Amino acid sequence: MAVGKNVKTTYERIKNMRIQGAKRVAVEGVKSLKNVQSMPELRQSCLLLAKSRPTEPMLRNGLRFVFYSANEHNLKATVRNAINKFVRMNDLAVDRIADIAAKRINSGDVLMTYCHSSTVTETMRRAKKQGKRFEVIVSETRPRYQGRITARELRKSGIKTTMIVDSAVRSFINDADLILMGSDAITSDGYVVNKIGSATVALCAQESRTRLGVLSELFKFDPMTSYGTLEPIEERPGREVWPTPPAGLKIRNPAFDVIPPAYIDYIVTEAGVTAPYNVINQAKSRYPWMVEQW
Amino acid sequence: MAVGKNVKTTYERIKNMRIQGAKRVAVEGVKSLKNVQSMPELRQSCLLLAKSRPTEPMLRNGLRFVFYSANEHNLKATVRNAINKFVRMNDLAVDRIADIAAKRINSGDVLMTYCHSSTVTETMRRAKKQGKRFEVIVSETRPRYQGRITARELRKSGIKTTMIVDSAVRSFINDADLILMGSDAITSDGYVVNKIGSATVALCAQESRTRLGVLSELFKFDPMTSYGTLEPIEERPGREVWPTPPAGLKIRNPAFDVIPPAYIDYIVTEAGVTAPYNVINQAKSRYPWMVEQW
Amino acid sequence: MAVGKNVKTTYERIKNMRIQGAKRVAVEGVKSLKNVQSMPELRQSCLLLAKSRPTEPMLRNGLRFVFYSANEHNLKATVRNAINKFVRMNDLAVDRIADIAAKRINSGDVLMTYCHSSTVTETMRRAKKQGKRFEVIVSETRPRYQGRITARELRKSGIKTTMIVDSAVRSFINDADLILMGSDAITSDGYVVNKIGSATVALCAQESRTRLGVLSELFKFDPMTSYGTLEPIEERPGREVWPTPPAGLKIRNPAFDVIPPAYIDYIVTEAGVTAPYNVINQAKSRYPWMVEQW
Amino acid sequence: MAVGKNVKTTYERIKNMRIQGAKRVAVEGVKSLKNVQSMPELRQSCLLLAKSRPTEPMLRNGLRFVFYSANEHNLKATVRNAINKFVRMNDLAVDRIADIAAKRINSGDVLMTYCHSSTVTETMRRAKKQGKRFEVIVSETRPRYQGRITARELRKSGIKTTMIVDSAVRSFINDADLILMGSDAITSDGYVVNKIGSATVALCAQESRTRLGVLSELFKFDPMTSYGTLEPIEERPGREVWPTPPAGLKIRNPAFDVIPPAYIDYIVTEAGVTAPYNVINQAKSRYPWMVEQW
Amino acid sequence: MAVGKNVKTTYERIKNMRIQGAKRVAVEGVKSLKNVQSMPELRQSCLLLAKSRPTEPMLRNGLRFVFYSANEHNLKATVRNAINKFVRMNDLAVDRIADIAAKRINSGDVLMTYCHSSTVTETMRRAKKQGKRFEVIVSETRPRYQGRITARELRKSGIKTTMIVDSAVRSFINDADLILMGSDAITSDGYVVNKIGSATVALCAQESRTRLGVLSELFKFDPMTSYGTLEPIEERPGREVWPTPPAGLKIRNPAFDVIPPAYIDYIVTEAGVTAPYNVINQAKSRYPWMVEQW
Amino acid sequence: MAVGKNVKTTYERIKNMRIQGAKRVAVEGVKSLKNVQSMPELRQSCLLLAKSRPTEPMLRNGLRFVFYSANEHNLKATVRNAINKFVRMNDLAVDRIADIAAKRINSGDVLMTYCHSSTVTETMRRAKKQGKRFEVIVSETRPRYQGRITARELRKSGIKTTMIVDSAVRSFINDADLILMGSDAITSDGYVVNKIGSATVALCAQESRTRLGVLSELFKFDPMTSYGTLEPIEERPGREVWPTPPAGLKIRNPAFDVIPPAYIDYIVTEAGVTAPYNVINQAKSRYPWMVEQW
Repeated sequence: MAVGKNVKTTYERIKNMRIQGAKRVAVEGVKSLKNVQSMPELRQSCLLLAKSRPTEPMLRNGLRFVFYSANEHNLKATVRNAINKFVRMNDLAVDRIADIAAKRINSGDVLMTYCHSSTVTETMRRAKKQGKRFEVIVSETRPRYQGRITARELRKSGIKTTMIVDSAVRSFINDADLILMGSDAITSDGYVVNKIGSATVALCAQESRTRLGVLSELFKFDPMTSYGTLEPIEERPGREVWPTPPAGLKIRNPAFDVIPPAYIDYIVTEAGVTAPYNVINQAKSRYPWMVEQW
Repeated sequence: MAVGKNVKTTYERIKNMRIQGAKRVAVEGVKSLKNVQSMPELRQSCLLLAKSRPTEPMLRNGLRFVFYSANEHNLKATVRNAINKFVRMNDLAVDRIADIAAKRINSGDVLMTYCHSSTVTETMRRAKKQGKRFEVIVSETRPRYQGRITARELRKSGIKTTMIVDSAVRSFINDADLILMGSDAITSDGYVVNKIGSATVALCAQESRTRLGVLSELFKFDPMTSYGTLEPIEERPGREVWPTPPAGLKIRNPAFDVIPPAYIDYIVTEAGVTAPYNVINQAKSRYPWMVEQW
Repeated sequence: MAVGKNVKTTYERIKNMRIQGAKRVAVEGVKSLKNVQSMPELRQSCLLLAKSRPTEPMLRNGLRFVFYSANEHNLKATVRNAINKFVRMNDLAVDRIADIAAKRINSGDVLMTYCHSSTVTETMRRAKKQGKRFEVIVSETRPRYQGRITARELRKSGIKTTMIVDSAVRSFINDADLILMGSDAITSDGYVVNKIGSATVALCAQESRTRLGVLSELFKFDPMTSYGTLEPIEERPGREVWPTPPAGLKIRNPAFDVIPPAYIDYIVTEAGVTAPYNVINQAKSRYPWMVEQW
Repeated sequence: MAVGKNVKTTYERIKNMRIQGAKRVAVEGVKSLKNVQSMPELRQSCLLLAKSRPTEPMLRNGLRFVFYSANEHNLKATVRNAINKFVRMNDLAVDRIADIAAKRINSGDVLMTYCHSSTVTETMRRAKKQGKRFEVIVSETRPRYQGRITARELRKSGIKTTMIVDSAVRSFINDADLILMGSDAITSDGYVVNKIGSATVALCAQESRTRLGVLSELFKFDPMTSYGTLEPIEERPGREVWPTPPAGLKIRNPAFDVIPPAYIDYIVTEAGVTAPYNVINQAKSRYPWMVEQW
Repeated sequence: MAVGKNVKTTYERIKNMRIQGAKRVAVEGVKSLKNVQSMPELRQSCLLLAKSRPTEPMLRNGLRFVFYSANEHNLKATVRNAINKFVRMNDLAVDRIADIAAKRINSGDVLMTYCHSSTVTETMRRAKKQGKRFEVIVSETRPRYQGRITARELRKSGIKTTMIVDSAVRSFINDADLILMGSDAITSDGYVVNKIGSATVALCAQESRTRLGVLSELFKFDPMTSYGTLEPIEERPGREVWPTPPAGLKIRNPAFDVIPPAYIDYIVTEAGVTAPYNVINQAKSRYPWMVEQW
Repeated sequence: MAVGKNVKTTYERIKNMRIQGAKRVAVEGVKSLKNVQSMPELRQSCLLLAKSRPTEPMLRNGLRFVFYSANEHNLKATVRNAINKFVRMNDLAVDRIADIAAKRINSGDVLMTYCHSSTVTETMRRAKKQGKRFEVIVSETRPRYQGRITARELRKSGIKTTMIVDSAVRSFINDADLILMGSDAITSDGYVVNKIGSATVALCAQESRTRLGVLSELFKFDPMTSYGTLEPIEERPGREVWPTPPAGLKIRNPAFDVIPPAYIDYIVTEAGVTAPYNVINQAKSRYPWMVEQW
C-alpha cells in the first residue's frame, strides 16, 4: 500500500538532511501525517518516516504518539489533534525545562556548555533576564562547529561568552561551576547520547568535581533501548573532518557520543530534576504510550 | 654591551616564529652563538636568546650547555665544540629513544598519538622497518592541525593511519593498545607539558587502562621548575581558533597542556625508560651542568 | 488576611530557634494549625510557617499534608485529623526505619556515625536490645558538638562508644564496618543534605570501601528540588566557630553539606531499603500528595 | 499441622542439594505444592520450603506467587494454575532476556563471562544463530569449576571459546568488549549477588572501562532486602577448596559475591534493559504480588 | 655514664612540652649539646634526647649531624661549629623554600592551608610583599586550634583570610586554586606525616583536582623509615578533645595523619620542587650523613 | 666455541624446570660457571644460561655480576670469588629485607599474601619470633597452587592461617591490614612482575585502601627494561589449567602478572623501604655494575 506524497517528500528531505535538528525533524515528520486516509496507511507512513534518520528517538516518539492517539472512526480529526498536541507538548516541555534549569544558575557562575542545544541557550537567556550575571565557556565542537552557533546566540543575548577549542575543555573546567548540555537520546539504563565529545567533557567534569546537568525533553527517551536496541551511532562522511586528506588515510567521523550516567549529576526534563537512572520512570509515568512497544 | 648580528637575527626569527619546533629552535639558537668574541658577550647573547620563546627549555638547556662548556682561553674553539656536541647529543638522543620505544610496539597493535612529534613518528617508522604490522589513530589537533602533519608522515611511510577529531579520542581509545606522545617540557615534579589537548588524551587513557608512553629527550627537562618557576603556558591569538568571531566574543587559545605524572605510564629518554618522577634524576646524572642554576 | 496567634507564635519560635530539630520543628509547626477557621487562613498560615526555616522540607511536607487533607465542609475535624495522622505517620516511620536498619548491624561490628540523629541512635539501641554486641565511633561535629549528644545517648544505653575529632574520621574509618547517618533533606536526584562534614565522611567511606547507609523518613524528601529549587544551605553566625576572632577575619559557617548519591550505599526509609536515586519514587508512591506542586 | 509428603521430600532433596540451580530449585519447590488440601497447609508448606536454601529469592518468589494466587474456594485448581503460570513465566522471561541481550552482541566482539548461567549461554547461542561471529573468554570459577560447564556448552554450540584461570581475568579484560553474567539475587538497592569472584570481575571491568551486563529474571529480585534482610551468603565446606589441608589450617569458602551497582552497566530482565537501581521498580510494576510482604 | 645537666633539663622540657614545634625542639635539643666533654658522653646525650619526642625526625637529624661532625681531637669546637651550622642550615632552608614556593602563588588565587606551619605563613607573607593579591582559607584544626594561630599571623600581615571548621574543607575546596601545607616528617616511600586532618584535606584536594603542595625542610625526612620503622603516631590525652566526657566514653586523639604520596602534587624543599617519591634522593644527595644509619 | 659440561647440564635443568624458583635458578646458574677456562668461554656460558628462562632478571644479574668481576689474569679465583660473593649478597639481602619488613607487622594484624615467596614467609616467621600475634590469609594461586606451599610453611611455624580461593580475595581484603608479596622482576619504571593474579590482588587493595608492600631483592630489578625490553611474560601449557578440556577449547595460561606502581604502597629491598619508582635508583647506587649494559 502506498504512503501519501507529503510523507514521501518529508521522508526524503529528512534523509537528505534538508531538515535538521532533533526537534525540527520530529515536528516536520509528524506534521507530514496530517492527510493520511486510513489506519493501515498511517502505520505504513510511520514505519517509513521512522527509518529516515537512525539516531532520532524524538521523531519515533512523535510518530508513536500520533499512531496511538488516532481513531479509525474519526481518523482525520484525531490525527490532527494528535499532531497539534505533540507540537504543543514539545513547546511546553522546553519552556518548563528552561524554567527549572534556570534556577540552578547563580549570579557569579562560570558555566560551560558544548555543541548547540536550543534548550540550553533558552535556559541561559531566561537566567540572564532574571538579572543573573554569569559567563559561559563554549568549545567549538568540531567538525561542524556547532559551538559557534551557541556563541553567536549567547552574544546576541548579551551574555559574556568565551570560545575555546574542544581539547582545551580540561584546561578551563576547573574554573567552571556548572556544565549544561542538551541530549539527542536517553537510554533505558540512563546513558545520554549527545554530540561527539560530550562524554569527554563529562569525564573532565567528573575528574574535577564540577557538576554536569543535562537538559532534555522526555521525548528524547528512546523506549527501544529497553528492548536491547543499542542507540545507533551515526557515522558521517570523512570529508567533514578533512576535505583533502592524503591518499590512503582513513577518516572516522562518528557524530555522537555516549555519556555514562555516573558522570551526570542530574537531568532536567519537563517532569522535573532527576537522576539519569530515573528518566525511564518519568517517561513511563508521563507518556505511558511512549514505553509501549509497537 | 652589544650582541652579535647573528644572534639578533636568530632571536628575531624565533620570536616571529619563522623558526619553529622545539628542536629546530634549540639548534638554530645555539648555532647563532658561533661567532661570539668574549665571555660577557656570550652571556648576553644567551640571555637574549633565552627570552625569544617562553616555553622552550630545550633552547635554554642548549645555551646553558654552550655557556658552561666555553673557556675564556680558547673561546671560539670551545664554543664551536660545544655547539657541535649539542647537535650531536640531540641526534643521538632521538636515535636512542626511537630505538628503545620501538621495542614497545608489537605486531597487531593499535597505537594512538596526538599532535606531531618527530621522535614519535621516527619510532613508528623504525617499528615498521622491523617488520611489525600496526596501525595508528591520530586526532587533528586543533587549532593548527598538527595531527595532519603526523598523518601525512605516517602515510608516506606506508603505515595504516586513521584520522579523527580531537573530541573523538575517548570513543576510540578503548581500541588502542598504546598511546605515544612527544613532549615540550618536563618539570622537576614529573609533569609533562605538551600541546593543548594532551592532558585530555592522558585522562582518557587513564580512564580506560590504556598505557601512555611519553618520548622525550632529556633536554626537554626544565631545571628552572626545580626553583619554583611554573612552566609558562603560551597563549596564542584567538584568530587561530576563529578568524571571524561575532563581536564581543572572547577567545582563549592556550597552546600547551600539563599532563599529571599519575596519568603517564612511562617516559622514554636517551637514558632509558623511567617513571616521570625520575626524569629529574636522569637529567642530573647524565647532564650535571643542566641542573646547575645560572 | 490575618493568621492566628498560635501560628504566629510558633513561626517566631522556630525562626528564633527556640524550637529545633527537623522533626520537632515539623510537628510543632503542623500542630499550630489546629485552630484555623477557613481555607484561605489555612493557606496563609502554611505559607508563613514554610518560611520559618529554609532547609526544612519535613515541615513543608507536613503543612502540605494538612492542607491537602483539609476539607472546607468540615474544616476543624479534617485539620485535626490530618495533624494527628501526620504525627502518627512520623512515629511509625521512625519505628519502621529503626526496625529495618537494625538488621544491618551485626555482632562484632564497628559502626561509625556523625552528628546526632535520633533515628540512628534509636536503631543502635534496638540492635543492642536484640543482643548484638558492637561499638560506635562518633566525631564531635564542630561547631556545635552534636556528636557529644550522640555519645551521651549511646553511653546511656550502655553501648561502647569512642569519640574523635572530625578531622580524624579518615584515620579510623578503615576499622569501621558500616557508617550510619541521618538526613535533613533528600533531593529529587538523590543527593542527601545533612550536617556540614557529612560529605567528607562519605568521601572517606568511598575511598576505603566502607558502606554508608542513610536513615531518613520520606518526609525529608524535598519535592521542590524536582522543580529546580536547590536545597538552600543555611549559613550560621561566625561566632559559633570562634567567639573572639582577630579583627578583619572572615568566618564562613555553612550548617549543611551535600552528599553525592554515588557515595551512599543505601537509604533506609519507611518504604524500605533503596538506592538514593529511587527515594523520589518511594515518596511518589507512598505519599502522592507530597510530590504534587502547590 | 502436617505438610504433605511431596513437600517434605522436596524440602529434603533441596536441602541435601540433590536439586540444584536457582531455577530448578524454584520450579521443583513450587511443583511440590500441587496436592495441598487447605490454605493453612499451603502456608505451612511454603514456610517450610522457603527455609530449604537461604540464598534463593527465586524459590521464595515462586512460593509467594502460588500462595498469593490460591483461592480457598477452588484451591486445587488455583494452585495448579499458579504452578503452571509460574513455570511459564520463567520460560518466557529467559526467552525474552536472551532476545534482548543478544542484540547487544556484535560481530567481532570478544565477550567474557564468569561461572555458568544458562541465560547467558542461551543468549550467546542465539547471537551465534543470528550469524554473529564472536568469541568468549571464560574463567574456571574455582572451587567448583562451573566455568568448565560454560566452556563445554559454548564449544558444543561451535562458539570460539578460551579458558583462563580466575586470577587471569584482569590480564585479558582489556581485550574484551562486553562482559555478560547471570545473577543469583538482586537487592532492593541494586546490588547483584552472584558466584564468588563476580565482584572482582566487575571491579576489573570498571578499571578498564569494559561494559558489564547482568542477565537476570525479575524472580531473582529479593523483596526481603527492602526490609533490611541482608542477602545471606552461603558458606560451603572447606574441603571443596582443599581436600587434604595441613593440620590447623582454616579454610573459608563463601559461595557468593556481592557486586556494587556502580560496577554494573546495565541489567537485562524480562521487563527490559535498565540500571541496577531500577530493578525494584520493574519488579513492583510487573509482579506486584512479589513486593508485598508476607 | 652520666649526661650533662643541660641535656637532662632540655630532655625534660621537651618531654613535658615546655618546648614545642618541630623546629624549636630540634634547635633547643641540639644546642643543649654544647658543653659535652667526650665522644661517649655526646653519644649518650644524643640517644637520650632522641627519645624525648617520638615523632620528631628533625631533632634526630640535628643530633645525627652534630654527632657525625664532632671530632675527638677538638671536641668542643667541632660540636659548637656543628650546632651553629645546623641552625644556619635550617634558617637557609626555610628562606629558600619560601622563595621557591612563593613563585607558585599567583595574583587572584584562593589558597587553602591547614594547621600552622611557619614555612607556609612565611611563604604567603613573601608573596604578599611581592605585590600579589590573594586570599587564604584556613580551618580551625581541632582539638588545639592551630588554625587560629595561622589566621592571626595572616591577618597581622594584612592577608585576606577566612576561617572555617575542619569538616567544611570539602565545601570550600572547589573554590581554591592551591593548597599549601607544612610537614612533620617525610618517609622514605614518600608519605608525609602532618597534623591530624591533613590527609582528609589531601583527599578532598584529589577529589576536586586542586593542587596540593607540601613545604618541608629536608631535615623532616626520617631516614629510619628506610629501615622499616613506621613513623610513630603520637596519641595525646582525650581531655584535649572533651574535658568533661560522660562516664565510660573512650576518646581517641592521635596527633598526626599520614598523607599518601599520590595525593600530593609536589613537595618544596631547600633542594627544589620535586615529587614526594624523590625526597629521599634529595636528602641523600644534599645531606649524605643523614641517610647513614647510626 | 664450546661451553663446559656443567653449564650445559644446568642450562638443560633450568629449561626443563628441574631447577625452579627465582633464587634457586639464579644461584645454580651462577654456580655452574665455576670451571670456566677463559673469558670468551665465560661470555658464551653466560649468554647460554641467560636464555634458559625468559622471565628471570635475577639469574641474568648474577651472570652479569660474575662476568663483570672476572679477571683474565686470575680467572678461576675471580670467578669463584664472584660466585661466592653473589650467593652471600643474596643471603644478606633476604636477611635484611625480612628484618625491615617484619617491623611493619604489628600484633593484632590480619595479613594477606599471594602465591609463595620465601622472603615473605621468612618475614612472617621473624615477626612471629618477635612475639607478634597476627594471622595470615592466603589464596590458593591457581593453576599450580603455590598458595598451599605458603599455607604449609606458615602452619609449620605455628602462624594462624586461612586459605581461600583466588577469586575470594576481594571478599576478605577489607578485613586485612597489610598485604605482603614477593616479586619476580621489577622494571625501570616501577612495575612489579609477579605470579598471575598479583595485579588483581593489588587492584583490590587499592579499591579498599589496604596497604600493599612488595618484598624484593634488588637482583630482581631488570636493567634491560631501561632499554625498552618488555619483561617477557611466560605462557605455560594449557593442561596445567585443565588436563582434559573439550575439543577445540583454547586455554591461555600466562604465568605472570604486571602490577602498576600506583597500586603498590612501598617496596622493601636490601637498600631499604622505597617507592616503586625509586628501585632503579637504589639498584644503580648499590650495584652499579647491574645497570651497565652488556
